[in-house]
Amino acid sequence: MSNGSPLITLLTDFGHLDPYVGVMKGVILARCPGARVVDLTHEIDAQEVGEANFALRGSHPYFPPGTIHVVVVDPGVGSTRRILCARSHGMLFLAPDNGVLTGVVGEQDEVRLVENRTLFRDEKVSNTFHGRDIFAPVAAHLAGGGAFEEVGPATGGLVELDLPRPVPQQDGGLLGAVIHVDRFGNLITNIREDDLESLEDGCRNVTFRGQQIGNPVDSYAAVPHGAPLAVVDSFGFLEIAVNSGNAAKHFNAERGDALRLGRPAS
Amino acid sequence: MSNGSPLITLLTDFGHLDPYVGVMKGVILARCPGARVVDLTHEIDAQEVGEANFALRGSHPYFPPGTIHVVVVDPGVGSTRRILCARSHGMLFLAPDNGVLTGVVGEQDEVRLVENRTLFRDEKVSNTFHGRDIFAPVAAHLAGGGAFEEVGPATGGLVELDLPRPVPQQDGGLLGAVIHVDRFGNLITNIREDDLESLEDGCRNVTFRGQQIGNPVDSYAAVPHGAPLAVVDSFGFLEIAVNSGNAAKHFNAERGDALRLGRPAS
Amino acid sequence: MSNGSPLITLLTDFGHLDPYVGVMKGVILARCPGARVVDLTHEIDAQEVGEANFALRGSHPYFPPGTIHVVVVDPGVGSTRRILCARSHGMLFLAPDNGVLTGVVGEQDEVRLVENRTLFRDEKVSNTFHGRDIFAPVAAHLAGGGAFEEVGPATGGLVELDLPRPVPQQDGGLLGAVIHVDRFGNLITNIREDDLESLEDGCRNVTFRGQQIGNPVDSYAAVPHGAPLAVVDSFGFLEIAVNSGNAAKHFNAERGDALRLGRPAS
Repeated sequence: MSNGSPLITLLTDFGHLDPYVGVMKGVILARCPGARVVDLTHEIDAQEVGEANFALRGSHPYFPPGTIHVVVVDPGVGSTRRILCARSHGMLFLAPDNGVLTGVVGEQDEVRLVENRTLFRDEKVSNTFHGRDIFAPVAAHLAGGGAFEEVGPATGGLVELDLPRPVPQQDGGLLGAVIHVDRFGNLITNIREDDLESLEDGCRNVTFRGQQIGNPVDSYAAVPHGAPLAVVDSFGFLEIAVNSGNAAKHFNAERGDALRLGRPAS
Repeated sequence: MSNGSPLITLLTDFGHLDPYVGVMKGVILARCPGARVVDLTHEIDAQEVGEANFALRGSHPYFPPGTIHVVVVDPGVGSTRRILCARSHGMLFLAPDNGVLTGVVGEQDEVRLVENRTLFRDEKVSNTFHGRDIFAPVAAHLAGGGAFEEVGPATGGLVELDLPRPVPQQDGGLLGAVIHVDRFGNLITNIREDDLESLEDGCRNVTFRGQQIGNPVDSYAAVPHGAPLAVVDSFGFLEIAVNSGNAAKHFNAERGDALRLGRPAS
Repeated sequence: MSNGSPLITLLTDFGHLDPYVGVMKGVILARCPGARVVDLTHEIDAQEVGEANFALRGSHPYFPPGTIHVVVVDPGVGSTRRILCARSHGMLFLAPDNGVLTGVVGEQDEVRLVENRTLFRDEKVSNTFHGRDIFAPVAAHLAGGGAFEEVGPATGGLVELDLPRPVPQQDGGLLGAVIHVDRFGNLITNIREDDLESLEDGCRNVTFRGQQIGNPVDSYAAVPHGAPLAVVDSFGFLEIAVNSGNAAKHFNAERGDALRLGRPAS
């Protein structure tokens, strides 16, 4: 049974204080008792669609084919924003149409509008908790083997987030930005491994908040304890870190801060 | 198997710092390997029975029949307070007798005293962690198909919390109070949907902390971004919120604050 | 199926903000769909091996034989630190060789070096997220019935933490220390139940931060609400607590603070 039932992942901004996530699991398991549910994170800052998008982009590739990813970071709940179900990378994605699927679902993927009310929790759907009343029962429908096509008609024209790309500089370097601060204070930037590889040798010296960090290294342990470094992280992003320390505190840095790659200042 | 084994939900004030919840799951799964365990919340403020009661009242209806709800918010652990097992709404509830079942378990429900020590973890039951030594193994007994009647003798006279009800006002309105602040800063009040419906038209204007919010609306999106509103939430309570914002911060409000419904001031 | 597949527990310092734990579960379930995964805690302070060791020592005994305990509190990730797999107490332990297994895995236990790269996630193992690339797939190998011996060659000479023991005093008492502050503000000390029993009668009076607390009692409820007490906790450690209160706040205390047991001052 467990081998046969797809995984469902949940990614929300519901936090752990209230039983909202537990209630979604109750609705799912009441309708699909064999479902296996995995929490991606519920600590997305309230209504921060960009943070949810970053988490989803990074984590979905590590799940097996058939996984159903459910995203409920949904500042537009109760408005006319659409709810989407997309088939992409051999998985299904259930999310509000607010840009959270940017970079995950592409032009070539099949997308449907979730509007088949017979799949919803009951006749009275609340205007404030679609996670419970729409997302959970539709996910249970899919996990139980219900047809993707049943959720609603095909659609397109998804809302897209504007994901800031690093900007090439005249000296052959790049201007990038911190896009996420993780639990360890690591500063993840929008510079990808292939951006780095496209730079000329000698143009990869990292400067951040007035400090020259040097060329990217291979691991935290490549510098002494307490020293800052740049490293390509395990998701393929250039990251600024401190060996056995906290880079966000070290640099007094936050999301949005700029970093520069280029030739070292002489 | 998974389709056959009941769900167990856990609702505690153990937090996520210590492995106390994990230990309870170890004890449950050692005794009932097929049990499926769902976390409701473990972030109830330490020993806040009222908060646990609010979470349990809101969430238990969304679970399938046969679910075993285990509540360990238990300031009286190790004292003479009783441990109860109640059968209600087609589910089982295992909780200390401290009022946490108020509004969930009623006069007509069968309640038993948990005192069959052969079901407990072992001969030496600690005085400080009944979650591990009593609640978990008894839940495993029940999830494994063990008889409800075996937990102990029938009892009654449960401790009841005094849940404050809104107070009717001379002008036809109501005086209510904030009973919960959720993760989004939404202010949930003790005014229910049917309280609202019982009011005369024209008497539903909401005033909170000196500000007139107006009549309840249908969704967050019914007001501009950043504007306050009142809405019946997805659990049937009147809630004060801010569209795409945080009402607790907006109003500098907290649990216990009063709100008034009535005719608008002219 | 679920009855046949071993439990996997996860103990990390990854927190709940990022989807790192969810990603590990994705990797495990992609390789071993029937695995059952239990979270011990993910809120270990970043890179605090001692805290992780304390959590593991306390919680592993409550899991059934065959459980696979995975610990990823790993300040040395990407360095030359070793990864170990140990068979002890009828369970398996997968952890970096940084002392986190101290007091759990002993001289008589079989320990292997995890270095069979065919079990790792793929050819390219990151230098920053071995939880995903090594620990998760090796745990899935073991949970799926793969041989312990396959992970790598036998080894020994584990890194050991120096766990501070209480120091006997000339007056027949003991000098101990707070080793953990839990979510309730309870102060867990390094004095064990058998340390207490070895003391002469009259030598168990507890003094902490200048205040005489008296002899250890049997339960929180043995003293009035708001009063401090010492009690042997449910894991066998002497704990300083406040009945229905928070001892860390009451005493303005923290990890490392000393406590003294001895004859009461007259």
